Amino acid sequence: MPGPGVPAVAALAAAPCKSEVVCHNTYMKSLTEHLEFEVPNRRGFVNITSTVEGLVRKSGVREGLCLVNAMHITASVFINDNESGLHHDYEAWLEKLAPHAPTSQYEHNRTGEDNADAHLKRQIMGREVVVAITKGQLDFGPWEQIFYGEFDGRRRKRVLVKVIGE
Amino acid sequence: MPGPGVPAVAALAAAPCKSEVVCHNTYMKSLTEHLEFEVPNRRGFVNITSTVEGLVRKSGVREGLCLVNAMHITASVFINDNESGLHHDYEAWLEKLAPHAPTSQYEHNRTGEDNADAHLKRQIMGREVVVAITKGQLDFGPWEQIFYGEFDGRRRKRVLVKVIGE
Amino acid sequence: MPGPGVPAVAALAAAPCKSEVVCHNTYMKSLTEHLEFEVPNRRGFVNITSTVEGLVRKSGVREGLCLVNAMHITASVFINDNESGLHHDYEAWLEKLAPHAPTSQYEHNRTGEDNADAHLKRQIMGREVVVAITKGQLDFGPWEQIFYGEFDGRRRKRVLVKVIGE
Repeated sequence: MPGPGVPAVAALAAAPCKSEVVCHNTYMKSLTEHLEFEVPNRRGFVNITSTVEGLVRKSGVREGLCLVNAMHITASVFINDNESGLHHDYEAWLEKLAPHAPTSQYEHNRTGEDNADAHLKRQIMGREVVVAITKGQLDFGPWEQIFYGEFDGRRRKRVLVKVIGE
Repeated sequence: MPGPGVPAVAALAAAPCKSEVVCHNTYMKSLTEHLEFEVPNRRGFVNITSTVEGLVRKSGVREGLCLVNAMHITASVFINDNESGLHHDYEAWLEKLAPHAPTSQYEHNRTGEDNADAHLKRQIMGREVVVAITKGQLDFGPWEQIFYGEFDGRRRKRVLVKVIGE
Repeated sequence: MPGPGVPAVAALAAAPCKSEVVCHNTYMKSLTEHLEFEVPNRRGFVNITSTVEGLVRKSGVREGLCLVNAMHITASVFINDNESGLHHDYEAWLEKLAPHAPTSQYEHNRTGEDNADAHLKRQIMGREVVVAITKGQLDFGPWEQIFYGEFDGRRRKRVLVKVIGE
């Protein structure tokens, strides 16, 4: 965005660029941040909305996109309701669709891991969300909240927040 | 954005600012629109492809990305086939994976709502799609169509379309 | 990115554009490529990580986003582990959640197709991934790999890679 006293883009475009003209533009901006988590149980949901909102402010981006993704393949980032009953329902439902036990039912667990179910659960809940930034803020509906979903916790994991725009 | 009567970016680019100085740029553009829906039944699918195509044209973006997302957490935006038999199959399949009744099976419904299943169904079908814009158009495969998926209708809901690019 | 010897963006903005000053900017860049696949069986997973990495390098984008999406509605692009046991588990799990046979259970198959299950499986695994580009590379966690997931193969299909950024 042109600052105060700087000719707007439209005016610039109309005038040839000469020595009197400030060559000013909207520069593309970006911000990259990695969030760290260590969920104490195997599974859990963490509300990261305010953290992401803070990063969007820090980026200075007014119009753009904000990508938030799990960097681990047994975890999710998703947008839904901040309601504990619903989180209980997600937990029960995912366990029904992709049960943890018996761990021997999964070939992946022959590698010595016991987290095959976590790789499946993460596909249901998704790896990432892309959120619009409008007038410097996440352009959210009334109940949208961003969650980190852990399906194989008890160790450090990361989420990437990438903001691009102008 | 340059207004009417303002030289287009390409023309500007063709003319040197002065002999020594080349002021040359592509400007980043963006467009934000909110679509409104009121699906008369609890569940339904609405083809929004042509609406989104119109917004991409309106944006003037030639190369970029188009984000289309449900702003409500009991609804989806997804890309699939415009075929009524398939939509029937989605309906039956989602009801099998995340049944609406008995509503008492979900803790979320203890809040007085009866839409826990809608929060689950939306995770299967997804919140959003990101579509490439190439040469001013949605860069689609032969059968790709964008749908709004409603899982708890009979009230007003919104979808966000955000276009960024140049 | 300003090259060596070029004034930084902040300095540029502060100084009027004079004859000695090269008005230099970060240009938005984009790259569009379509990958072709012909998976010999009905279903299969193809690791496309190194192909996408090569396209990001080709784009010259240092900070931005990379969208990779299936252009067909019976296929997926997803990020998970490059481990053959897990791929076997995905195959078995998807077949349990959305069985291919009997094909008569799906209304979509009354059109003469037999691929309704593929449209369902693709919703679980997703259409697309959006990956951050940081310092010229895909900003990946330790095990993230990009896969093309085919659920109705034995014919040519395409994946779109779109890079935008600066």
